[in-house]
Amino acid sequence: MVVEFDLLIPVPGASCATPTTPNEEMNGAGNLMDFLDEPFPDVGTYEDFHTIDWLREKSRDTDRHRKITSKSKESMWELIKSLLDAWSGWVVMLLIGLLSGTLAGVIDLAVDWMTDLKEGVCLSAFWYSHEQCCWTSNETTFDDRDKCPQWQTWAELMTGHAEGGGAYVLNYFLYVLWALLFSFLAVSLVRVFAPYACGSGIPEIKTILSGFIIRGYLGKWTLLIKTVTLVLAVSSGLSLGKEGPLVHVACCCGNLFCSLFSKYSKNEGKRREVLSAAAAAGVSVAFGAPIGGVLFSLEEVSYYFPLKTLWRSFFAALVAAFTLRAINPFGNSRLVLFYVEYHTPWYMAELVPFILLGVFGGLWGTLFIRANIAWCRRRKTTQLGKYPVLEVIAVTAITAVLAFPNPYTRRSTSELISELFNDCGALESSQLCDYVNNPNMSRPVDDIPDRPAGPGVYNALWQLALALVFKIVITIFTFGMKIPSGLFIPSMAVGAIAGRIVGIAVEQMAYHHHDWIIFKNWCRPGADCVTPGLYAMVGAAACLGGVTRMTVSLVVIMFELTGGLEYIVPLMAAAVTSKWVADAFGKEGIYESHIQLNGYPYLDVRDEFTHRTLATDVMRPRRNDPPLAVLTQDSTTVEDAEALIKDTDYSGFPVVVSRESERLIGFVQRRDLTLAIKTARQKQDGVVSSSMVYFTEDAQQLPASDPQPLKLRRILNLSPFTVTDHTPMETVVDIFRKLGLRQCLVTRKGRPATHGSDDEPGPGVHHVQLDPVSTPRSLFCCHIYSTCSNLFLLSST
Amino acid sequence: MVVEFDLLIPVPGASCATPTTPNEEMNGAGNLMDFLDEPFPDVGTYEDFHTIDWLREKSRDTDRHRKITSKSKESMWELIKSLLDAWSGWVVMLLIGLLSGTLAGVIDLAVDWMTDLKEGVCLSAFWYSHEQCCWTSNETTFDDRDKCPQWQTWAELMTGHAEGGGAYVLNYFLYVLWALLFSFLAVSLVRVFAPYACGSGIPEIKTILSGFIIRGYLGKWTLLIKTVTLVLAVSSGLSLGKEGPLVHVACCCGNLFCSLFSKYSKNEGKRREVLSAAAAAGVSVAFGAPIGGVLFSLEEVSYYFPLKTLWRSFFAALVAAFTLRAINPFGNSRLVLFYVEYHTPWYMAELVPFILLGVFGGLWGTLFIRANIAWCRRRKTTQLGKYPVLEVIAVTAITAVLAFPNPYTRRSTSELISELFNDCGALESSQLCDYVNNPNMSRPVDDIPDRPAGPGVYNALWQLALALVFKIVITIFTFGMKIPSGLFIPSMAVGAIAGRIVGIAVEQMAYHHHDWIIFKNWCRPGADCVTPGLYAMVGAAACLGGVTRMTVSLVVIMFELTGGLEYIVPLMAAAVTSKWVADAFGKEGIYESHIQLNGYPYLDVRDEFTHRTLATDVMRPRRNDPPLAVLTQDSTTVEDAEALIKDTDYSGFPVVVSRESERLIGFVQRRDLTLAIKTARQKQDGVVSSSMVYFTEDAQQLPASDPQPLKLRRILNLSPFTVTDHTPMETVVDIFRKLGLRQCLVTRKGRPATHGSDDEPGPGVHHVQLDPVSTPRSLFCCHIYSTCSNLFLLSST
Repeated sequence: MVVEFDLLIPVPGASCATPTTPNEEMNGAGNLMDFLDEPFPDVGTYEDFHTIDWLREKSRDTDRHRKITSKSKESMWELIKSLLDAWSGWVVMLLIGLLSGTLAGVIDLAVDWMTDLKEGVCLSAFWYSHEQCCWTSNETTFDDRDKCPQWQTWAELMTGHAEGGGAYVLNYFLYVLWALLFSFLAVSLVRVFAPYACGSGIPEIKTILSGFIIRGYLGKWTLLIKTVTLVLAVSSGLSLGKEGPLVHVACCCGNLFCSLFSKYSKNEGKRREVLSAAAAAGVSVAFGAPIGGVLFSLEEVSYYFPLKTLWRSFFAALVAAFTLRAINPFGNSRLVLFYVEYHTPWYMAELVPFILLGVFGGLWGTLFIRANIAWCRRRKTTQLGKYPVLEVIAVTAITAVLAFPNPYTRRSTSELISELFNDCGALESSQLCDYVNNPNMSRPVDDIPDRPAGPGVYNALWQLALALVFKIVITIFTFGMKIPSGLFIPSMAVGAIAGRIVGIAVEQMAYHHHDWIIFKNWCRPGADCVTPGLYAMVGAAACLGGVTRMTVSLVVIMFELTGGLEYIVPLMAAAVTSKWVADAFGKEGIYESHIQLNGYPYLDVRDEFTHRTLATDVMRPRRNDPPLAVLTQDSTTVEDAEALIKDTDYSGFPVVVSRESERLIGFVQRRDLTLAIKTARQKQDGVVSSSMVYFTEDAQQLPASDPQPLKLRRILNLSPFTVTDHTPMETVVDIFRKLGLRQCLVTRKGRPATHGSDDEPGPGVHHVQLDPVSTPRSLFCCHIYSTCSNLFLLSST
Repeated sequence: MVVEFDLLIPVPGASCATPTTPNEEMNGAGNLMDFLDEPFPDVGTYEDFHTIDWLREKSRDTDRHRKITSKSKESMWELIKSLLDAWSGWVVMLLIGLLSGTLAGVIDLAVDWMTDLKEGVCLSAFWYSHEQCCWTSNETTFDDRDKCPQWQTWAELMTGHAEGGGAYVLNYFLYVLWALLFSFLAVSLVRVFAPYACGSGIPEIKTILSGFIIRGYLGKWTLLIKTVTLVLAVSSGLSLGKEGPLVHVACCCGNLFCSLFSKYSKNEGKRREVLSAAAAAGVSVAFGAPIGGVLFSLEEVSYYFPLKTLWRSFFAALVAAFTLRAINPFGNSRLVLFYVEYHTPWYMAELVPFILLGVFGGLWGTLFIRANIAWCRRRKTTQLGKYPVLEVIAVTAITAVLAFPNPYTRRSTSELISELFNDCGALESSQLCDYVNNPNMSRPVDDIPDRPAGPGVYNALWQLALALVFKIVITIFTFGMKIPSGLFIPSMAVGAIAGRIVGIAVEQMAYHHHDWIIFKNWCRPGADCVTPGLYAMVGAAACLGGVTRMTVSLVVIMFELTGGLEYIVPLMAAAVTSKWVADAFGKEGIYESHIQLNGYPYLDVRDEFTHRTLATDVMRPRRNDPPLAVLTQDSTTVEDAEALIKDTDYSGFPVVVSRESERLIGFVQRRDLTLAIKTARQKQDGVVSSSMVYFTEDAQQLPASDPQPLKLRRILNLSPFTVTDHTPMETVVDIFRKLGLRQCLVTRKGRPATHGSDDEPGPGVHHVQLDPVSTPRSLFCCHIYSTCSNLFLLSST
């Protein structure tokens, strides 16, 4: 079984954030600013686009902790310092919660205002959104809450006519114009200042959390630009949401506050714990669902999630949610994005449509992932990828032109979802609630029986059907463009529309055919049996589940929206069905697919490794490869070492006793070796090309004529991770996943001395083209970016 | 740094379930029945009181899965079988949910009835509880819901007088008598049929989930007896709860259904995944909090919790919760145990009393853990431990005698908590709600302003204070007796009493002193500012947190009880404070303390290993120990191997090339070796004491005169886990935790050949008294139960 490395090589430009390789990055003027923030590389740090070694980071943190604890006994001041250090984690969480909550509130307010700006302006105060404008007005009546003289559409303002064909055309034109302006601004800002601000960011954050270094991805500039362009992108009316980007924004906040404390800024492992919590805070503010946020971080994003992080994530998520509520952007003191309250329970028979919605969600997920990935691949392999600004402009133009005529696509997507989720109360003025009322009815407000649909409902159904098709198609082309774009809201919109349509259909069937056997048991005439809003919610969950393959966190987020356990069963039925249907067509969710498309070295925890290979089958060098690149402990010269660094691009080298008896004594990182030699040549007198490099504890006594030796034991890792060549690959993969290794050495020992046929490969898996004792770390090494972990596994499935 | 093994050795009788060692177990007639269920031990299985090897279990399951997948392509029937296999996990979850929900419902109903039986009987139908009796009666009035002629106290029934001194004494006497009868029955059943049914079970379940084998602990008999005795124990009025034992019961259900599918019954790793989900279902039915249950399992109980298990746990927890709701034991269609609804928000200034309650909770947790552990230790080291029945009878007698006079301790603890949590509505008839009403008041029912306390409230306060002291003292002596006993309810009761007292105090202060600066801003006269019920809830959370050190799951459980995010901040403030205060006095919660007391080999995920040792410092054999017990690959005779087994009690042996060059080729388990030799001697002709044992692939050609060799390569583990002797112990511990290893070999390689001072220990940590190449697995081995994992770490902290 040959493991193919080729599939994996990332094509520069695969991500929405081109260029992807570090060298190219440095040439782009764009994100240079974030590079300036980074400290000068030092021994023990990692290069860009490299994988971190979790075990090493952890043991460095333990050392740090140990040092502080032992110092704390010395003086009062040291004790206070150690206490501050212990509390710094909570301080960081508090700051992340406050900042990400504030940013989310500001984004919500700005989006509200700018979305309305496409339609008109508030005369009393131009910074008011439509809703705020009419709230503050005294002339607003209860029946017509969204009409007031202060709020004027552009046509009204310019021509004085609010109605008529001319006004419509003018409004239409200005709507498109504003949309184009917003999206042009967004894409330009991203292009010029922070290429990493594009996309949803979740695939990259997953990769970063799994232990990859992408410098600048979570930098200050990215934070600033992503926040601004997110507002612009959402306001432009494109089919995208703010939820994914909010996670990215929260992680940027996390990274920002990490730099305040050396505990986090100097340890890539600890930093990732903070980032996991920040991701939870991001989802928490996106939906107003703190528990859902924590579970999202646990289930979907995080790689290493110790219990301590669980607790801290929860704290950060709560602080963020309450900060957002204090800002109160929705003006209703509600924490959640779509607050709903239903008045009737659901019935067992309704599980059939719920499960059908689940099937729809699964199919939509499959279709979306395949189509979107195909389109993204096309973008990067053809000329298309070279004109990102043009692409955004074109998609915005198409979106705006098609969206304006349909009232359900003209407004913002979250408003649409909110309306679809809503139960039709007696006071509802929406077209969707245009039912034929029984004039004799004198029931309480919140217990309205099922009624026949009026013309408004039928009209709405047609418009919804058109909106559904439009959303499905345009979302495929929108996700992956060079602007911040989340996927949650568009997916939920698709599901909510489908769900509402199904819900109204079931409701009308139940009303007109009480006598059908399926309705007979639970729906008597005059009863309120079917809640179409619940169907919309179930549909939204199903579609979101199909695309992201979230399970528990999805149900919990939805549970937090409704606040009742009542509706968990419908939601779960839909989510499970959707996941199963989607999984039947392909195991990967949209984020994993994008990770794969971009060639990031990500080892999915959920992938099951089913091949029956042993370590010996996949390790390098193979039979006809050049021999293993090793250093010897006391017979290498500086020149040799430099030649080795120059000739190979492995990210590290095993150190052995001697070339004859390749017994392993340790492992040295390429970066550390390069830096050590460079520093020694500059600063240490007498180190020349012919100096010996010693990895031993005590250098031998050398004749005085010999050049000064270079002692490098301090950069030698004395406990490299080894497995035997008979270890099954599934175990090796497990070890890599669970311990977060960067490389692993394969050893072969104990060959029976009496076996004579060593050099002739026998049958089975035992042919190793290896020196007997130690084997190269290149097992998990491939030559892309000289990164040495996880990589090959993605391609072997 | 010497690692002390001695602390660890479990004293038989440490657990409430004596005896603890397998041999003693077998002598006890009690749980013999559960031993009969176990299959005959086979190669690849584990002995009782041994630790499993997670990696090996996982790789066995992968093999199984691979086989099924490849077979499924052969025929339709195999395909169906493979689909059934894939679905079996969900089926098991469904069954667990259904059974544990049903059992919880039955337990609730039975406890309700039997608790009331202590006071009286329903004449219309003796199987009705007091509440049910009066529901069905037509003569019950709304004001006096708990009085009806059908329900008669024992005194009323026997003497005809409901009131008066004689009736009181008779009722008192019968109350004590019933309590004694119930507890005597409970302890006798436990003693005779299932010793493992005692205690809360959570420490043992934690240990089992971490990979330890305790045969029969989750058997059918334990399930049956625990269910029955749990009802008896709770009904007897002892200060104990049913929540912990319900987790044990649910795990027994899980184990029961595992035996239906060979996928789970034959793989200890997969079985533990099911048990984790079952624990979630147990908490789900205990509190009606499915999400809290899943988080409890994740945070508190489980060791290995992959995402798949998360999703399945959630499913099982939901099914269980809905089954319980279908049974509807509380008669109110509510899922949760203590449903509450508060009508007023909380104010920032109230955080001060909430945090004080947190401090109280932390102190209570510390006090309880120390006192309880001290008492349990005393029990097992003195004569006391020999009379468990007498102990239970004595504690019951004291409890019943002291509890009857106080109305707050006479009733069941969950009723008490329920009343303490409740907000005083207008219709409340409880003594705690005896406020002085303003006659002019004409407000809606659910918005009652703060009022001055009436005499009933002051009376109640005294009784509550007495109840608090009583509960604190008696719980310390109750937990750990030989009956099923949970800790959640008593802890919550202590906290709820304290919280309610504080709440009433704050309320009255705010009423009488509006003008104080602290109340001025938020509490105007005539407003409803303080909800004493909320204080009770916060206090309950604090005390539960102090004892168990739960964090997120605790808050989520409480959140599910109230169903609103509103009160998460008070709950969290209290839970965090309580945890910090308690942690300041000792890191371990009650479960970890009991695990340690009982000497179970449990490696806590949360413990931080801070010692600065290397593997070389802790491994065995040490300098003056006898040499390493090893097998050679082709020069050991059957006799030698048998002698090795007899002379040592290691649970496995490294296999090396030869004694001279101790190069490691694999590791063989003691159990497998014993069984293989035994089987070969019985069934294979020509295997005698002088036969050679071969671990090589091909046995050498032997002279015909030599006895038949014994080939044992198939039981040889070719990929034993190794670390170098320079590996820091914190890394080794991390590897043990994350990979769930059973043993680890330490290797020392690459000693510079030029060093002459090999045999003289130099300075530092590098003195190893070891043969150069391989070292024994006894590093992690101690001789208790011949178990080989995790053990030594507990004692090193």
